[in-house]
Amino acid sequence: MKMALRACLRTKPGLTGLLSQLSCSGHAAARRAPALVAQRSSSSTSQKIKVDFDQSSGVAVMHMQSPPVNSLSLEFLTDVCIALEKLEMDKSCRGLVVTSSQPKVFSAGLDILDMYGKSPEHCAEFWKAVQEMWLKFYGSNMITIAAVNGSSPAGGCLLSMTCDYRIMADNPRYSIGLNETKLGIVAPFWFKDTMVNTVGHRATEMALQLGLLYSPAEALKIGLVDQLVHEDQVLTTATETMTKWLAIPDHARQLTKSMMRKPTIDKLAANREADVNNFVNFITKDSIQKSLGMYLEM
Amino acid sequence: MKMALRACLRTKPGLTGLLSQLSCSGHAAARRAPALVAQRSSSSTSQKIKVDFDQSSGVAVMHMQSPPVNSLSLEFLTDVCIALEKLEMDKSCRGLVVTSSQPKVFSAGLDILDMYGKSPEHCAEFWKAVQEMWLKFYGSNMITIAAVNGSSPAGGCLLSMTCDYRIMADNPRYSIGLNETKLGIVAPFWFKDTMVNTVGHRATEMALQLGLLYSPAEALKIGLVDQLVHEDQVLTTATETMTKWLAIPDHARQLTKSMMRKPTIDKLAANREADVNNFVNFITKDSIQKSLGMYLEM
Amino acid sequence: MKMALRACLRTKPGLTGLLSQLSCSGHAAARRAPALVAQRSSSSTSQKIKVDFDQSSGVAVMHMQSPPVNSLSLEFLTDVCIALEKLEMDKSCRGLVVTSSQPKVFSAGLDILDMYGKSPEHCAEFWKAVQEMWLKFYGSNMITIAAVNGSSPAGGCLLSMTCDYRIMADNPRYSIGLNETKLGIVAPFWFKDTMVNTVGHRATEMALQLGLLYSPAEALKIGLVDQLVHEDQVLTTATETMTKWLAIPDHARQLTKSMMRKPTIDKLAANREADVNNFVNFITKDSIQKSLGMYLEM
Repeated sequence: MKMALRACLRTKPGLTGLLSQLSCSGHAAARRAPALVAQRSSSSTSQKIKVDFDQSSGVAVMHMQSPPVNSLSLEFLTDVCIALEKLEMDKSCRGLVVTSSQPKVFSAGLDILDMYGKSPEHCAEFWKAVQEMWLKFYGSNMITIAAVNGSSPAGGCLLSMTCDYRIMADNPRYSIGLNETKLGIVAPFWFKDTMVNTVGHRATEMALQLGLLYSPAEALKIGLVDQLVHEDQVLTTATETMTKWLAIPDHARQLTKSMMRKPTIDKLAANREADVNNFVNFITKDSIQKSLGMYLEM
Repeated sequence: MKMALRACLRTKPGLTGLLSQLSCSGHAAARRAPALVAQRSSSSTSQKIKVDFDQSSGVAVMHMQSPPVNSLSLEFLTDVCIALEKLEMDKSCRGLVVTSSQPKVFSAGLDILDMYGKSPEHCAEFWKAVQEMWLKFYGSNMITIAAVNGSSPAGGCLLSMTCDYRIMADNPRYSIGLNETKLGIVAPFWFKDTMVNTVGHRATEMALQLGLLYSPAEALKIGLVDQLVHEDQVLTTATETMTKWLAIPDHARQLTKSMMRKPTIDKLAANREADVNNFVNFITKDSIQKSLGMYLEM
Repeated sequence: MKMALRACLRTKPGLTGLLSQLSCSGHAAARRAPALVAQRSSSSTSQKIKVDFDQSSGVAVMHMQSPPVNSLSLEFLTDVCIALEKLEMDKSCRGLVVTSSQPKVFSAGLDILDMYGKSPEHCAEFWKAVQEMWLKFYGSNMITIAAVNGSSPAGGCLLSMTCDYRIMADNPRYSIGLNETKLGIVAPFWFKDTMVNTVGHRATEMALQLGLLYSPAEALKIGLVDQLVHEDQVLTTATETMTKWLAIPDHARQLTKSMMRKPTIDKLAANREADVNNFVNFITKDSIQKSLGMYLEM
C-alpha cells in the first residue's frame, strides 16, 4: 500500500527505513508531482498496462508500467481487472505472468491518493476495486505466475500472493511483505487469509503483527516466495516455469485450484459490503485523514 | 491411482515419465494379462494380503501382495478393510505396520479396471470401498505406520498419509505424491484434506495443481514422509519406531488422535453419498470412458 | 502439568526419563514436603509473583517465583491472572515479559495437588482458573514475550505458547512440549488449537500423540520456540526483542493480534462450561484418583 508507505504520522518507528526505500525507488519524489494525477484518464489502459499475449504458447505477460511505482490506484486497479477479465475470457490464454516495467519495484501497493480527501463514496469504490482485483486474481482459472522483479510491500505483496507461483529477484535491496501495522493500519482478513494459505498461521501472526518486510532470502525461507533468481532472469524463469504448469490438463488443474481456494474466496464474497464499510469508516476518520494529509504535505 | 497412471490420453505431457516408471515396476506389462482379472475371487484374502500378528508385541504387519503393483481394486480394498476391521476389534492388537511384498512399489493406487466399462452401480460400489478404506485407516484406533518400500503414487500416497508415521525407502527411483491432475483427474476433497493435514496448505496447493511426484528426499523435505532409511531397513525401522509409540498409554493416544482427525473424518462421513455421486458422474462420462478405453488398448 | 509429570501409574514407559528430569529440577523432592501446601495463602501474590514495571519503557517483567517449579496451582494461577489484569488495565504498560526465578524450570505445569482428593467443585474452580489464564494471555492486548529460562512441560509449554514470541535458553538439559499423553491424560482442544497455531497440524499430531518433549534445538526447528540464546541472555534478549515490537503502533498491532487469535479464543469462550465438566468428570474418576494417589505416595 502506498497508504502503507505513506499513511500515518503515528508510525515514526519504521518510517525512516521505509522512506529511504521509497526515495530509492524514486517514488516519493515522483508522487509529489501533481502531474501524475493529471495524467489519469479512462483510456490509459494501454499506457499503464502492457499485455503481451503469445498465441502459440497460450501465455500472456502483463507488464505493470504505471510510474513511478505501480501504485494500485482506482484507475490502475480498474485497468488491471479489465485486462485480466479479457484474458480470462479468451480460452486460448492459459497462463499469465505478472511483472513490472518499473525499475526496482514490483508494486508499492494501494494508492494513498484514492484515500485522502475523498468522499466516502469514492473510498468505497476504491476498496471495491481492491477486492475485485483480489477476487479475480486469487480465483483466476489461468495459471498465474508473479515475476517479482522489485520490492513488493503491502498491496504489492498481496498481488503476488494471489498467484500460483512467485519468482523473486535475488537482490537484497528488495523486500516483500504485508507491512500495514508498521504504518498504523491493519491488513483486512482476506489479506491475512491469503498469507496464512501461503506461509501458515504462525509466520503470518509474526509477519502481520510486526509488519515485517522480508528480504528475498528470508521470503524464500518462510515460503512467501517460491524461487529466487538473478534480477535479469526473473521473467525468463517465469516463462520456463510456466511450461511445467502448462503440461497439466487445464480442467483438472482449475478444479484443483478452486478446491484449494474457494473457501477463502467465498469468505470475502459473502462479506464484501461489510468489508467496504469497515474500510470506509476507518479511512474517513478525522485522525487518519489528518495523518494522511500531514504525510502528503511532507 | 492406476487410473492416475493410465487414465487420460489428454495427459500426454507427463505421461512418458509415468509410463517408464510403470514399466520399471512391471505394472504395465503384467496388467495387460487378462489372467490377472480372472484370478480374482472372494476367497483371495489370504492371497492378496498377508497379516503377521505378533501377539507378544501387540503389533501386526500387513503385507500387500497383490501382483503386480498392489492396485487398489474393489476386491483388494474389500480385503484390506476386512483385515483392518479384524485387527481393530482385537484389543490385543495395538499397532499396525503396512508394507508391500511387491518389488519397487508400495501401491500404484486405484485400479482402473474397476472404473472402465463398468455400470454406475459398480463404480459407486468401488468408490464406497475407497472411502471405507480411508475412513478406517485415518480413523484407526491402532498406531499405524506406513513402511513405504517402493513408489506410492495417488491412492498409494493416500494410504500412506492415513498412517501415523511414514518411513520411506531412500531410493531416488521411487516417488510418492498425489499425481491425479497430471492424468486429467482431480483428487477429491478428502484426499486434499489429508494432504493439507500432512504438509500444510501451500505445499498441497502446489502438489495437487502440478500432480507432483516427489523423490524420497523431496518428500522428506516437505514432510510428506517422516523418515528415510535404506531400502533393506524400512520394515525393521518401522518395527523399532512402533516401540516408541507403544510406550504411550493407548487411551490417551487414541483420544488425542481422534481430536486431531475427527473434523476431517466427519467431513467425508457427512458427505459420502454426494462424493460417490460426484465420482460416478465424472467417471462414467463418455469422454473419460473413451480415454480410459484408449489407454487400456495401448 | 505437574499432573502431567506425576499423574498416572499407567504411564510407566516414559516415566523414568521424566522423573530423572524432575529430580534434576529439584521438584520431586521439594514437592514431597507438605510444608509447601501450608505456605499457601491468599496474600501470597507478592511472594509467588514479582512484577517489575519500567514506566519509561512501558514494559513489565513478571518473574514466576513459586518454589520449587512454578507449578500452576489454583492459587498461583489466580495470582498470575490478577497480576496480568492489573497490567492490562494500565494503559502505560505495553509489553510483558514472562520468566522464571526458579532454577532450571520455567514452569512444570498444572499442580496435581489441586486435582487429587479434591471435591468436584474444587476441581472445577481449578480448571476455570487454567482456562482464565489461557484466555487472558492468549488474548492479551500487550506484547507478550516468554523468556523460557528452563524446562517447560505441559502447562508450562502452554503458557509460553500463549505469548507473541518465545526465547528459550539453549541448554540441552531443558525441554519443552505438551507431554500429557505420556502420562495417560489428554491435552484439551484449546491446548491443541494453540499448538496447531504455533507449529501446524502435522507437528502437533505427532507431538501430542507421542507426548513429545523437545530439546531447545528441536523446539526451534519445528517452530515451538522462536529463538535460542545462552542461558544468561534469555531475559536481556527478551527486553531487546521487545523494543522491536514496541515500534509498532499499539492499535494496529492489537487489532492484528485479535484477528489472528479470536477464532481460537471464541471456541473456548463458547464452551467453557462443557470443557470444565469434561475435565471434572475425567479427573474425579476412581481410576485416575487412585493413580494420582499412588503417585503422590511414592
